[in-house]
Amino acid sequence: MLIVKVVKPLVSTNRIPDFEHKHLQVVLDGSTKKVAVDAVGAKPGDWVICVSSSAAREAAGSKSYPSDLTIVGIIDHWEPDPPKTSAPSPSPSPSNPQGGKPS
Amino acid sequence: MLIVKVVKPLVSTNRIPDFEHKHLQVVLDGSTKKVAVDAVGAKPGDWVICVSSSAAREAAGSKSYPSDLTIVGIIDHWEPDPPKTSAPSPSPSPSNPQGGKPS
Amino acid sequence: MLIVKVVKPLVSTNRIPDFEHKHLQVVLDGSTKKVAVDAVGAKPGDWVICVSSSAAREAAGSKSYPSDLTIVGIIDHWEPDPPKTSAPSPSPSPSNPQGGKPS
Amino acid sequence: MLIVKVVKPLVSTNRIPDFEHKHLQVVLDGSTKKVAVDAVGAKPGDWVICVSSSAAREAAGSKSYPSDLTIVGIIDHWEPDPPKTSAPSPSPSPSNPQGGKPS
Amino acid sequence: MLIVKVVKPLVSTNRIPDFEHKHLQVVLDGSTKKVAVDAVGAKPGDWVICVSSSAAREAAGSKSYPSDLTIVGIIDHWEPDPPKTSAPSPSPSPSNPQGGKPS
Repeated sequence: MLIVKVVKPLVSTNRIPDFEHKHLQVVLDGSTKKVAVDAVGAKPGDWVICVSSSAAREAAGSKSYPSDLTIVGIIDHWEPDPPKTSAPSPSPSPSNPQGGKPS
Repeated sequence: MLIVKVVKPLVSTNRIPDFEHKHLQVVLDGSTKKVAVDAVGAKPGDWVICVSSSAAREAAGSKSYPSDLTIVGIIDHWEPDPPKTSAPSPSPSPSNPQGGKPS
Repeated sequence: MLIVKVVKPLVSTNRIPDFEHKHLQVVLDGSTKKVAVDAVGAKPGDWVICVSSSAAREAAGSKSYPSDLTIVGIIDHWEPDPPKTSAPSPSPSPSNPQGGKPS
Repeated sequence: MLIVKVVKPLVSTNRIPDFEHKHLQVVLDGSTKKVAVDAVGAKPGDWVICVSSSAAREAAGSKSYPSDLTIVGIIDHWEPDPPKTSAPSPSPSPSNPQGGKPS
Repeated sequence: MLIVKVVKPLVSTNRIPDFEHKHLQVVLDGSTKKVAVDAVGAKPGDWVICVSSSAAREAAGSKSYPSDLTIVGIIDHWEPDPPKTSAPSPSPSPSNPQGGKPS
């Protein structure tokens, strides 16, 4: 299951009928925003557990519910990791640690 | 569910018979183009919700439809994040942070 | 569904019996080579649609076929994006193909 | 299956009823923390095998259990790879590149 | 299906009963080590095809086997791509760029 943060509810007026009675939440998975079906009543700012894959359907209440990401629990206490900087710090330090001069 | 942007319809004349009656859309998932079955009638430029995994089959109308990505809703209002630059741009340079000649 | 390019057929003499009667193709998904079951008769160089997840089984012809990636359609016309270079091109070519003078 | 390290148990008081009787563990998959259902009684620090996808449900004890990640075995001996630094280590320290005294 | 290289067998004494009668292999998927159920009798060093997702269960011999990654074929001949260096290595070093003497 993923550990994600609830951002805000999502409004989608034009959607397939099967989605009708559930709340949708925008969640932050790392740095990517996704949409999850909310089965627990989470609030923006909550850290929650999301189940994906085929189990998300049953977690949303029914095997035929078309969810691939469902909020199944609110975490009591969570200390998020500091954000990962995938890009290296481009500090103009003169000591090029891993490359050598390009030309 | 993924939050993606519709790019354009996809034309594939030579395909398996099971795909026949549904519209296919090219969608942009982050910086990757994928193909989704359109169950809601989206237009290029729309921000939409896509369901993946096994739920994409039922969302496309039938448990036996061979989809792994189905557009299930159009988002009413969406402000996309600014594009992630895999290249760093935290540089304190005052001008053109992500293009231009570096020196 | 993924948009991938067919590279070449794959030969695997020692394999499980369930794989026997289908053609396998090496495909290029971004910069990663994968193997797909070919349900449409694609040729090397074709841009094709691949379905993954549980839908790949039915797309390969039977719910019990053990595929997780099946070619389901040939795209009529496709303009690939320019390759994403996560790593800089190490080529010593003098003609900087993608961006500005480095020094 | 994934090779992950157990970090600690996860406490989630407000969760869906289906999750009730199983232990949840925070695990480290590469540099990402996830939550797994523990089917073997792992301890923090153990290197374990996690099964994902639809098989995680049956591995958790029942086809209707809504897990997408289940710990199915403890690895007897495991030498983890040195951490991949996608970003170069910015520390200018001349010694002990990846461990050192934490305090 | 994934194209991976077999590294070595995996020993896990404490595991769920459902895993008992199959060989487990550590495989290298790109630069990530995973565990696969071996359905073909692969040896360390073999390049093999692995099926993931729900198809991995049937490929392992039974729909209820809890595998999400199963080796389904040995590739007759495979030329791996040169390793992708996420970190640049355009250094013009004259000597053995990616291995060095193992002993």
